Amino acid sequence: MSQKKLSGVEVAQHNTRESCWIVVHGNVYDVTDFLDDHPGGSKIILKYAGKDATQEYDPIHPPDAITTNLPPEKHLGPVEPDTVEKVEIVITDEEKARQERMSNRPPLDEILNLHDFEAIAKQVMTDKAWAYYSSAADDEITNRENHAAYHRIWFRPKILIDVTKVDWSTTILGHKSSMPLYITATALGKLGHPDGELTLTRAAAKNGVIQMIPTLASCSFDEIVDSAEPGQVQLLQLYVNKDRAITQRIVQHAEERGIKGLFITVDAPQLGRREKDMRMKFTDEDPSEVKQAGTGSVDRSQGAARAISSFIDPGLKWADLDWFKSITKMPLILKGVQRWEDALKAYDLGLAGVVLSNHGGRQLDFARSGIEVLVEVVYKFKETRGITFPNERFQLFVDGGVRRATDVLKAVALGATAVGIGRPFLYAFSTYGTEGADKALKILNDEFEMNMRLLGAPTIKDVTPDMVDISNISSHVGAVPGDRLYDSNYESMQHARLREVKSKL
Amino acid sequence: MSQKKLSGVEVAQHNTRESCWIVVHGNVYDVTDFLDDHPGGSKIILKYAGKDATQEYDPIHPPDAITTNLPPEKHLGPVEPDTVEKVEIVITDEEKARQERMSNRPPLDEILNLHDFEAIAKQVMTDKAWAYYSSAADDEITNRENHAAYHRIWFRPKILIDVTKVDWSTTILGHKSSMPLYITATALGKLGHPDGELTLTRAAAKNGVIQMIPTLASCSFDEIVDSAEPGQVQLLQLYVNKDRAITQRIVQHAEERGIKGLFITVDAPQLGRREKDMRMKFTDEDPSEVKQAGTGSVDRSQGAARAISSFIDPGLKWADLDWFKSITKMPLILKGVQRWEDALKAYDLGLAGVVLSNHGGRQLDFARSGIEVLVEVVYKFKETRGITFPNERFQLFVDGGVRRATDVLKAVALGATAVGIGRPFLYAFSTYGTEGADKALKILNDEFEMNMRLLGAPTIKDVTPDMVDISNISSHVGAVPGDRLYDSNYESMQHARLREVKSKL
Amino acid sequence: MSQKKLSGVEVAQHNTRESCWIVVHGNVYDVTDFLDDHPGGSKIILKYAGKDATQEYDPIHPPDAITTNLPPEKHLGPVEPDTVEKVEIVITDEEKARQERMSNRPPLDEILNLHDFEAIAKQVMTDKAWAYYSSAADDEITNRENHAAYHRIWFRPKILIDVTKVDWSTTILGHKSSMPLYITATALGKLGHPDGELTLTRAAAKNGVIQMIPTLASCSFDEIVDSAEPGQVQLLQLYVNKDRAITQRIVQHAEERGIKGLFITVDAPQLGRREKDMRMKFTDEDPSEVKQAGTGSVDRSQGAARAISSFIDPGLKWADLDWFKSITKMPLILKGVQRWEDALKAYDLGLAGVVLSNHGGRQLDFARSGIEVLVEVVYKFKETRGITFPNERFQLFVDGGVRRATDVLKAVALGATAVGIGRPFLYAFSTYGTEGADKALKILNDEFEMNMRLLGAPTIKDVTPDMVDISNISSHVGAVPGDRLYDSNYESMQHARLREVKSKL
Amino acid sequence: MSQKKLSGVEVAQHNTRESCWIVVHGNVYDVTDFLDDHPGGSKIILKYAGKDATQEYDPIHPPDAITTNLPPEKHLGPVEPDTVEKVEIVITDEEKARQERMSNRPPLDEILNLHDFEAIAKQVMTDKAWAYYSSAADDEITNRENHAAYHRIWFRPKILIDVTKVDWSTTILGHKSSMPLYITATALGKLGHPDGELTLTRAAAKNGVIQMIPTLASCSFDEIVDSAEPGQVQLLQLYVNKDRAITQRIVQHAEERGIKGLFITVDAPQLGRREKDMRMKFTDEDPSEVKQAGTGSVDRSQGAARAISSFIDPGLKWADLDWFKSITKMPLILKGVQRWEDALKAYDLGLAGVVLSNHGGRQLDFARSGIEVLVEVVYKFKETRGITFPNERFQLFVDGGVRRATDVLKAVALGATAVGIGRPFLYAFSTYGTEGADKALKILNDEFEMNMRLLGAPTIKDVTPDMVDISNISSHVGAVPGDRLYDSNYESMQHARLREVKSKL
Repeated sequence: MSQKKLSGVEVAQHNTRESCWIVVHGNVYDVTDFLDDHPGGSKIILKYAGKDATQEYDPIHPPDAITTNLPPEKHLGPVEPDTVEKVEIVITDEEKARQERMSNRPPLDEILNLHDFEAIAKQVMTDKAWAYYSSAADDEITNRENHAAYHRIWFRPKILIDVTKVDWSTTILGHKSSMPLYITATALGKLGHPDGELTLTRAAAKNGVIQMIPTLASCSFDEIVDSAEPGQVQLLQLYVNKDRAITQRIVQHAEERGIKGLFITVDAPQLGRREKDMRMKFTDEDPSEVKQAGTGSVDRSQGAARAISSFIDPGLKWADLDWFKSITKMPLILKGVQRWEDALKAYDLGLAGVVLSNHGGRQLDFARSGIEVLVEVVYKFKETRGITFPNERFQLFVDGGVRRATDVLKAVALGATAVGIGRPFLYAFSTYGTEGADKALKILNDEFEMNMRLLGAPTIKDVTPDMVDISNISSHVGAVPGDRLYDSNYESMQHARLREVKSKL
Repeated sequence: MSQKKLSGVEVAQHNTRESCWIVVHGNVYDVTDFLDDHPGGSKIILKYAGKDATQEYDPIHPPDAITTNLPPEKHLGPVEPDTVEKVEIVITDEEKARQERMSNRPPLDEILNLHDFEAIAKQVMTDKAWAYYSSAADDEITNRENHAAYHRIWFRPKILIDVTKVDWSTTILGHKSSMPLYITATALGKLGHPDGELTLTRAAAKNGVIQMIPTLASCSFDEIVDSAEPGQVQLLQLYVNKDRAITQRIVQHAEERGIKGLFITVDAPQLGRREKDMRMKFTDEDPSEVKQAGTGSVDRSQGAARAISSFIDPGLKWADLDWFKSITKMPLILKGVQRWEDALKAYDLGLAGVVLSNHGGRQLDFARSGIEVLVEVVYKFKETRGITFPNERFQLFVDGGVRRATDVLKAVALGATAVGIGRPFLYAFSTYGTEGADKALKILNDEFEMNMRLLGAPTIKDVTPDMVDISNISSHVGAVPGDRLYDSNYESMQHARLREVKSKL
Repeated sequence: MSQKKLSGVEVAQHNTRESCWIVVHGNVYDVTDFLDDHPGGSKIILKYAGKDATQEYDPIHPPDAITTNLPPEKHLGPVEPDTVEKVEIVITDEEKARQERMSNRPPLDEILNLHDFEAIAKQVMTDKAWAYYSSAADDEITNRENHAAYHRIWFRPKILIDVTKVDWSTTILGHKSSMPLYITATALGKLGHPDGELTLTRAAAKNGVIQMIPTLASCSFDEIVDSAEPGQVQLLQLYVNKDRAITQRIVQHAEERGIKGLFITVDAPQLGRREKDMRMKFTDEDPSEVKQAGTGSVDRSQGAARAISSFIDPGLKWADLDWFKSITKMPLILKGVQRWEDALKAYDLGLAGVVLSNHGGRQLDFARSGIEVLVEVVYKFKETRGITFPNERFQLFVDGGVRRATDVLKAVALGATAVGIGRPFLYAFSTYGTEGADKALKILNDEFEMNMRLLGAPTIKDVTPDMVDISNISSHVGAVPGDRLYDSNYESMQHARLREVKSKL
Repeated sequence: MSQKKLSGVEVAQHNTRESCWIVVHGNVYDVTDFLDDHPGGSKIILKYAGKDATQEYDPIHPPDAITTNLPPEKHLGPVEPDTVEKVEIVITDEEKARQERMSNRPPLDEILNLHDFEAIAKQVMTDKAWAYYSSAADDEITNRENHAAYHRIWFRPKILIDVTKVDWSTTILGHKSSMPLYITATALGKLGHPDGELTLTRAAAKNGVIQMIPTLASCSFDEIVDSAEPGQVQLLQLYVNKDRAITQRIVQHAEERGIKGLFITVDAPQLGRREKDMRMKFTDEDPSEVKQAGTGSVDRSQGAARAISSFIDPGLKWADLDWFKSITKMPLILKGVQRWEDALKAYDLGLAGVVLSNHGGRQLDFARSGIEVLVEVVYKFKETRGITFPNERFQLFVDGGVRRATDVLKAVALGATAVGIGRPFLYAFSTYGTEGADKALKILNDEFEMNMRLLGAPTIKDVTPDMVDISNISSHVGAVPGDRLYDSNYESMQHARLREVKSKL
């Protein structure tokens, strides 16, 4: 039945705290009662009261956020497009400077490694996007430990192996991958680039790697699946909803659309406190609103992460896994396992694998790195079940902290089937779009070629445990506090210096 | 018998080194003979000779300091209030700047963690107060190690546990506490805020936690007890006086007033050298006084800490504990145990528990952290007595270095009943008064909720030893001195840079 | 048959992308078809189109690079010398400043150690030369670890040994060396000094040490051999060519010329990514060329290292060693062994020794240091073959990270026959030519004398394993990420300060 | 026989390189032939040619340097005092600034610890003196490790011990000492203060501690002995001369004068390269002299240390100890033992003890710290001889790196009889003369009192091995090289900040 469209003029009259309508994607919503419950604060909504908020809404909400959060009677129906009042976007000096920096990105050829994307991203992303992508839990100890742990693993390369041809392709859950890695799920892609997660879909296709689609994507699930090439393999990361009917709908829809594996997130019964993200928020608010927020019943002080995650079920438990098996035939993988006991339980329950992960350091601070847990898991599976890895029947994945192909090869040598990489791809598409994501994969490809040769490993099967020295993997060393008086008295050694002429630096 | 009041005019005549009277809390004291013995130096007293010194006196002395230090014949009796000469307080530029900083504190909503209070406190407290609160012994190695030790403990969280409801309340010495922590005793609260320790009493009431009252409070013991809510649990920290009669009076009075536990400080036969505090002193003195002090018989160079602690008995010994048992029925806990042998001795003597503590790093430098000693104690009790923890009959407490709920949970996992937190609350009330202390507890509460969930622990009993990896707890690693020549020659890696436009930072 | 010489005028007409001739060392080459394949990019060639490119060509190419890379028909023959058009060299301001710094080097007497050469070199070398010499693979972790590993070895010196006379000479592959070290092979000496590798030949002669000639020398092999003193011992480092006939010619020619040992490089089936070197390149190109390069078929973005190494055979394998034995009687040593298994294999194959090396950190990042591998190798040879070191029949060498005679003595104590030193000599001759290289050897000589005495070792044989404490050699410690909030709140201890007068620094 | 005195006028005529006389302490010397052999260079002598050089000579030479280095015929006899030409001392701006800093030293009361003396010394000493005192061997790794090693030892204090009275006096070689430490031998005291070593003699007397007199004192041995109080105990440090007759004279004279122990230095067959000291030298020379020096036969580039030590015998050996026993009855102690094997040998030879020392890091770099060697020695004596420490028959001493009484107590707990302290006293008297040295001892005394109490040790005998945790003493940890790209991308956590007002720092 065709619905009569509302006129922009009528919408424009509801522009106060007392009656507040907004337009999103051509539909009008009455958000008056929702103002105080909006996790992002009322101020930002009131700015668009009576107007079209789509542009502001898009990057920070999953597409269906508004329809699922507002009761149906607040969905007022479509609006006549041309009549809607636009919000004039004022470009601040800060934003102008950011755009100038954006236009001065170095040519893509000068990007030599994954670190480079991050360095440029820090300069050209909006502060809000940078805060959301880069932040992690509490003191960000685990976040950094994820990378640091790889630096405690050293190589024992072989020589005089014919490495004229080297092949680092592998199979993940039975599907071909050009490299032993996949693009892992990360939320809110449009914060970094208007095309959001689609940039990754395209780059994945081009490079023969597998993408894991996030529950909290900015693009809709179907958009992402639609943009895949024929035969392109995609996986799904799942946050389990308190309303299991919704979860069932998502899972079964995914299976219908051809998703090849379901990665159930188990390390996020509640999203972690990401203080950088939280701190960012205050710069956006005017003081009066903040004060009001502090006294209100809804805690709106906790950044983008919490704002979008209230649906996640903290009651998810081992017993629920049977239900998942009953609703889908997709391989089930637990994402966020952090101790060998739980990996073993997953194995005994007949799941297809686990991702040893701490959610990129965004959940429990002082959780250990996935790569360290991998060592423990492999040891205990051997000890208690006689099982070795890699193993087709039960696959081990690791994510967090990866920046180099050498990191990936260390995980592979230790028994991982593949490694998930997240933030580096966010930084890649936030700086250079699809081309950036493509380049990131090409860089890794180059690094694999070189390092397979230098390791003396013609194929992935030749990357074996004896090629890594892990004797320091569990050394969580924090130096004893320094002697400040002694140290400041010590006059550092100096080398020879030029005479009379100023030094270069 | 009603005493005739002295007139302010008469008092004002005794304003010289030869005859020096001062007024404190409406009473006149002849301090002429005391001038050279004043731990804070004579200069500061002479400034108030013949005048009312109450405002200066209050924050840095326990209320009864003057009455107990002066012989009764020097107590000259009350003064007629309106006649007393006031000292004109000159507000220095430095103080004005401090007050301006104070008025520019961020709103309390922007305080995200306990570190934040400290960052603001450093800006808005007086230098003297900051020096007294923040300083620690010698090179402050132990002070910082207390925090650093927690960073050598990592989590092994469980997944797929139903954590819809999590409960982190516990019982301390049989009394309910909303969290496994208590506000530990710290001296001289009025240095930070005019309401001193009362801010903590109020915040404790509001949040259902237990406060330990310090011997060296700025507010009197009775004031603090009086301000408690009905049923609010309070403990007492005790410095044992050389004059045991005084100690007996204090202990029995405390018991009458309903104090639920007596924490006898055993790590302070002499207060430590806190050099930051000592160094502060010199800025307050004019050079001539300092010189004189250097040659005098009383060492006045050692800061606030020593000034107020000369009564503490260095002769306190194990044999004295029987006497304590004979004068009170309160549970007795030793505060400041630093080796398992002494914890075991306390257990064998039938005490109620020990606090594994090094006095916040303010006593013996290079004492180990309480959390490290906890591991040793639990191991040895198991080995020698077959006892495990937590244990109702003999409770283990830890204090020092705690800044996050994760720190507390680590201690709990290892067997502690609760953890004492001190300085963070000082910084909280010094910056925002009672509201600050309240907010500090609310932050911890939030952190507990999240971390209980992320650990997979629905209740405190579920926080178990297998949830922590302590393999590095005893690694007191100090890095070998660096190669300065090599390091300064090394040219650091650089990443890609923007072209032509200045970078953001 | 005498060939008619081309005239410079004719050559000058071929100065475009369509027809491009250049003159090198008096011969004309048609490089038109080669422009897009030039690893260094076409732009730099086009700058010299129709002109004499010798001066630009020399430092960055082995002498025979052009003749071996161009097909014979492109060798157009000699040119009439005086007729060739010269390229006017424009001296940039940057270059002028560099030359001024060069002229202000400190007198050689002020160079006290090998670090000093590097400090001056960083100031006075061209950026390109510095980047090529100093760069290493990926994050340069192994590069720095090479030096750091020596800092984990400590001495246990003997006292009351008569050390009036100390003698640190030794024999290497049966040949006398005044010190237990040799000058190892490093490429492209002319980048640092016009005399290139000859500076090292001369300094080696003067100081009685052995030089290893690199395959990729800027000077030709024969030049280097010719400049040796009678009886001076030289070794040859060999990159094995895909075309084994070329390799055979090189090896047999070397043997004829009296080379005393063949060091086959086995850690470089592909040259590593040296990002500093790669990054340098972009500063030399104009943007349009770079863009074009990015889209072309040849990857020209990878710096000098890859440009000159495309001939190296990644297919070299253990089985090839028999062939080497069949074509030469020189002792065969594998350079670049990084695990004990491979050292043992070399021993079992009857080779003369191995160099435990990771190519100065320029190949596989996270390879362990040679000195650490040495400990492993010596232990395993003893365990599996009962062999101890030093050993005449099979000699162990180590290179990478050496800066002090104490470093060398540590290696000797652990069983190495001698240690290779590379970069320090590059920096020495780049700053002071032959005199610099000579001075570097004299400094080491001085250090040996002193340290032999202080160790209590009259001869090299007296430098024994019990003189070093290697208990920490395998500690690859990376500190846990720091607590940034806690650390920035901590106010550092301060010492006493001067009154009123500004401090010296 | 009375010698006719030379006139200043005659002396003044010998003021050239061809004929160069100088006056030192009222005697004339012909140094013409010595000019090129002067370790300090000829320039500095020529500046005083024909004049009185005493003021320049004194601080950097032992008193008898000139008489022992020049043949008797060059001793031209006394000069008529008033006739000697004075060198006009030009006070440079730099020197004026230094003197102003000197006059602005903080009052001695503000010196709170030994570090403070060093901080002030760095500001007020001449560069030459600072370089000589503070410098150490090579990269100064051992120098700093000496202090760092103490930071790897932690305390396990006892509680509830009656510490009303604490007594930290002890006996050293049977002689009473008020503290378990002695002032160890350090050279050239007049560089820091005109009274040189006498400041230490006086301070030692005042505080009841023992002084070890250095061979290379600026004051003569007899001056130092003469200035001692009756009964004051002194020891002698001995560099053994190549000419044993000289050594015998020194030893037997010392015994006659009542010296109570002979500490034979065994870690200095040749003095170490102290590059800071060497580098200092070049600033004193004009370039032409330096150039000449570089080409001459005498190496004058090695700083003060080598200049004064050429007489030391590198041939000293174990067999010589019998000779020492034959010429003196003083207890013989080896100073500079660095491995347990040598300590055991000393014990078996019946010596009285050893100093576990590396000469303050001034000799062999990478020698381990004395405190670490102590642990090894005590363990091995127990294991091989069943001997425990402290032990009257064979005493263990340690020196190097001590800055706090806690450092000393750690050594005592581990078995040392006493600890030698050197540099801190140099800095103390260089800044405040005798009063400074006295204050340094008083500070240590204060620290002992407090720390004995806090350790729960009423006497030195109560300071036992169980009071220290040495599990990390042998951890020579050097952190793995950092990931510069990752680290520079990481954006540090920030805390809450003030609004609108500039922060304090």
